Amino acid sequence: MRPFTAPQLNPATETGWRRQWFDIIYRHDTRPSRNFDLLLVYAIIASVVVVMFDSVQRFHAAYADWLYVLEWGFTIVFTAEYLLRLVVVKRPLRYAFSIWGIIDLASILPTYLSLFIPGAQSLLVVRALRILRVFRILKLTRYIEESGVLMESLWRSRRKVLLFLFTVITITIIAGTMMYVIEGPNHGFTSIPSSMYWAVVTMATVGFGDIVPQTVLGRFVTSVLILIGYSIIAVPTGIYTAELANTMRDAEHAARRDARGCPHCGLEGHEPDAVHCRHCGEKLPPVFNV
Amino acid sequence: MRPFTAPQLNPATETGWRRQWFDIIYRHDTRPSRNFDLLLVYAIIASVVVVMFDSVQRFHAAYADWLYVLEWGFTIVFTAEYLLRLVVVKRPLRYAFSIWGIIDLASILPTYLSLFIPGAQSLLVVRALRILRVFRILKLTRYIEESGVLMESLWRSRRKVLLFLFTVITITIIAGTMMYVIEGPNHGFTSIPSSMYWAVVTMATVGFGDIVPQTVLGRFVTSVLILIGYSIIAVPTGIYTAELANTMRDAEHAARRDARGCPHCGLEGHEPDAVHCRHCGEKLPPVFNV
Amino acid sequence: MRPFTAPQLNPATETGWRRQWFDIIYRHDTRPSRNFDLLLVYAIIASVVVVMFDSVQRFHAAYADWLYVLEWGFTIVFTAEYLLRLVVVKRPLRYAFSIWGIIDLASILPTYLSLFIPGAQSLLVVRALRILRVFRILKLTRYIEESGVLMESLWRSRRKVLLFLFTVITITIIAGTMMYVIEGPNHGFTSIPSSMYWAVVTMATVGFGDIVPQTVLGRFVTSVLILIGYSIIAVPTGIYTAELANTMRDAEHAARRDARGCPHCGLEGHEPDAVHCRHCGEKLPPVFNV
Amino acid sequence: MRPFTAPQLNPATETGWRRQWFDIIYRHDTRPSRNFDLLLVYAIIASVVVVMFDSVQRFHAAYADWLYVLEWGFTIVFTAEYLLRLVVVKRPLRYAFSIWGIIDLASILPTYLSLFIPGAQSLLVVRALRILRVFRILKLTRYIEESGVLMESLWRSRRKVLLFLFTVITITIIAGTMMYVIEGPNHGFTSIPSSMYWAVVTMATVGFGDIVPQTVLGRFVTSVLILIGYSIIAVPTGIYTAELANTMRDAEHAARRDARGCPHCGLEGHEPDAVHCRHCGEKLPPVFNV
Repeated sequence: MRPFTAPQLNPATETGWRRQWFDIIYRHDTRPSRNFDLLLVYAIIASVVVVMFDSVQRFHAAYADWLYVLEWGFTIVFTAEYLLRLVVVKRPLRYAFSIWGIIDLASILPTYLSLFIPGAQSLLVVRALRILRVFRILKLTRYIEESGVLMESLWRSRRKVLLFLFTVITITIIAGTMMYVIEGPNHGFTSIPSSMYWAVVTMATVGFGDIVPQTVLGRFVTSVLILIGYSIIAVPTGIYTAELANTMRDAEHAARRDARGCPHCGLEGHEPDAVHCRHCGEKLPPVFNV
Repeated sequence: MRPFTAPQLNPATETGWRRQWFDIIYRHDTRPSRNFDLLLVYAIIASVVVVMFDSVQRFHAAYADWLYVLEWGFTIVFTAEYLLRLVVVKRPLRYAFSIWGIIDLASILPTYLSLFIPGAQSLLVVRALRILRVFRILKLTRYIEESGVLMESLWRSRRKVLLFLFTVITITIIAGTMMYVIEGPNHGFTSIPSSMYWAVVTMATVGFGDIVPQTVLGRFVTSVLILIGYSIIAVPTGIYTAELANTMRDAEHAARRDARGCPHCGLEGHEPDAVHCRHCGEKLPPVFNV
Repeated sequence: MRPFTAPQLNPATETGWRRQWFDIIYRHDTRPSRNFDLLLVYAIIASVVVVMFDSVQRFHAAYADWLYVLEWGFTIVFTAEYLLRLVVVKRPLRYAFSIWGIIDLASILPTYLSLFIPGAQSLLVVRALRILRVFRILKLTRYIEESGVLMESLWRSRRKVLLFLFTVITITIIAGTMMYVIEGPNHGFTSIPSSMYWAVVTMATVGFGDIVPQTVLGRFVTSVLILIGYSIIAVPTGIYTAELANTMRDAEHAARRDARGCPHCGLEGHEPDAVHCRHCGEKLPPVFNV
Repeated sequence: MRPFTAPQLNPATETGWRRQWFDIIYRHDTRPSRNFDLLLVYAIIASVVVVMFDSVQRFHAAYADWLYVLEWGFTIVFTAEYLLRLVVVKRPLRYAFSIWGIIDLASILPTYLSLFIPGAQSLLVVRALRILRVFRILKLTRYIEESGVLMESLWRSRRKVLLFLFTVITITIIAGTMMYVIEGPNHGFTSIPSSMYWAVVTMATVGFGDIVPQTVLGRFVTSVLILIGYSIIAVPTGIYTAELANTMRDAEHAARRDARGCPHCGLEGHEPDAVHCRHCGEKLPPVFNV
């Protein structure tokens, strides 16, 4: 994603329509470029809605032709956009092999492939990935800052979460094996992987009820698993909340720390109650309206 | 809602019964006005209970007539109250088109409409909205302050929550499409919207069990969805808790500290009962009505 | 409960066996009184286990006589303890009508009543209340301090939780009514109270699956209810966590604030970085090893 | 586990192959020892996967022979490793009776036992315990520090969690008994232990749906149980989050602040890069290896 935080114009075409389209597609601060972004968001959402509608038997039976036309319409629009991006940017291959480039390509290819491979129903999944493209546009709005705080907290807590995930998988394996032995295939615990699926569903408090313990021992183990699992599965919330509170306090702290620079050595970032520079000892100017 | 934080008396009727009723309905600090509020709360709760009872087949069969009479009784009382509010207030239209005015009207209209439209069972929903009116009365009690802290935290975290909701919808679309392709209509995943409903029910750990994965791949994807979903769905709790802790700390902080700076060394943040600067011993200026 | 934090000896019997038993029952710092507490906890747990076993068809069929004897054994022991408490304490009526006194009586009465009322199966509930008595003993151990922090946080957040409960009930009523109208009795939503039960089960992410939406609109409303409900039901965790963090920080703060008293005016509770008394300006003694 | 934080070489064999193998098995900072650790992790994961596969009917039918061979292969490898550990270490018995030694033995014994005891399917559970051995290796990596923060928070909150667990069990007993009396064996609540299993499943919001209240009173009690239970079950998250935030803040605090006091005014808590007191401008003593 990094290459596209600041994509560069193709230098061979500094002027003319390419220059104009580059500004429209890659910049986000002019009126035409904003309209382009908005149009794209609408087109993406509409195309995903079409995919959804097409999967409903009733709508498919009634409007198959219309939905087929719409699908092709969106595909052509997105193809045009994809080609335009390639033509206009300085290093087309870098775009083509970036995450966004691959998603862009993946969201148009299935329609063309369905011409050759008949029952390509499974390509539906790929088309739904189009919705991810909305994030690219969103990324450039004011949500980026909020997203930054959320992401930094997730990043800070990554090791704790990995440790947690490994613990959960371990408990899942042991609980799954135990229940497979206790309940057995007759009660729905047909294999260890099935039992592990049940253990995940139970520990995360989803509890579908398709597989259920029926023996007394099985129910006791389940109760213990739920209580243990519940305590453990609460941990990521705790981790994340604590990290988020930390990130937010740091941000606030940084904002609150006054902006006074030392008149002698220039050091900034003094505590609000500082009277002297902590580096050279020079008297600091007083704080106004803090 | 804002126009009603301080509604004004109809100036043409500064005296007489209108003045009296204005005080009773719109003020909340006199004895009659408090009794009026209390009576209204009881009437609202009773009327909602009547709607509930009426929906139970057994009660409807046995007490249909009584419930009918009660329903009309409440409707007449609320109609009288609605008209009174219109007559007494300075700008009746402003009230009529405010949120509370519309809820007031919506909670009496269905009974009248049921005279003309026979099978108007769906109007029941609107009658249940009456319960919202209790909030208007509650709003004026000491709960308003608590509500303020809760609301400010919600407001502060609105962008993070929107970002979260959009992420959830994206995961729902992708997971729903995947499961539709993997499991197919034979296992209950009849369409992408159905699969998305299942994905929401699963990710939020509700897990009804009406639609359930049956293939090995489907169960694996479900386990992953649950673990990812669980981590992600923990985020709003984290966000909200962190914001709430912040709001509460700020309020507490602001209440505890006074803004006096030491006239000698400039140190701020003295305790409210401090007479001398805790650092240099200089006499502090007195605190004014803090 | 307050009268029993410091129960008084019956003054007419300052000496003899009553004195001894008072010390054993109401004090908790001597060896015999501790043994008494422990014995009581074991007896309570054993008696509750007997009630549980008796409810299992298989055990009841096989060991009915033994369980009957055990039940009477425990009843006699607890009756003796109850009478002893009454005899030994200064104000017997005050004990008899306190919460603990009522629980004590309620846990022995059912067995006697079952002599006269044959099918008194429902008295089982009351017998299980015996388990509550363990809290009385626990209350006097080192857990009391921890419990204090938990309780103060719950108490601090009581108004926020009430506001939250009222909001949940309002959403339950509105969602229940909507689903009753949308799905109707044919899909299991037989009445508004039934629908409200479903709404609580769904919002709290329990999701039994006994009642389930089957129409497209119903599923959409359910998805929205789950997402809204999930955000709202996260609030108590947030409230409680924030309050708990506050309570814990206050306790820590109080412990960290140094114990230096001003040598001139005697004021305590200075900030750790204070050099002068904030009240009289006198120089404070330095802080040692903080 | 403590004896193995620093296991000692068998002194009688300071040189030769034993010395070499001691370094490979018990040290973790040389290249061969790291490769050994990695190999072991792969072998453990592979052996657990084999146990899982073997439980799936389809795979068992098709590859029974291969899986049998693999199982014996892993058993021989782990046996060799177990014997090596015994031979090389100074106090073999201390290792043999440590938690890790028992797990090591327990993970090889079942395969040998299955030669003598035919239908020893239940030994599967023990084999799955092998996965726990990965923790031993993980323990020595950089995850240990993160784990320390998580563990300290768990440890700090142990009493609160115990108190919480006891409260949950009490509610479970009372709610289970109530529902047993209200719903009775005909609606699936066949005994008090069964009802308690249902109460745990419901309170923890798992909600399998295999046992479900069917009377009006039962549904009302369930709704109340869910709401009460939900508030209470949120407590451990709160406790843990608050403790974790505390632990993390303490660690950060300790890391960020140095302990230098100003020699002139005594102010403490200077930034690590401070040269002069931020209050009086006095030169601070230098920081030593912080």
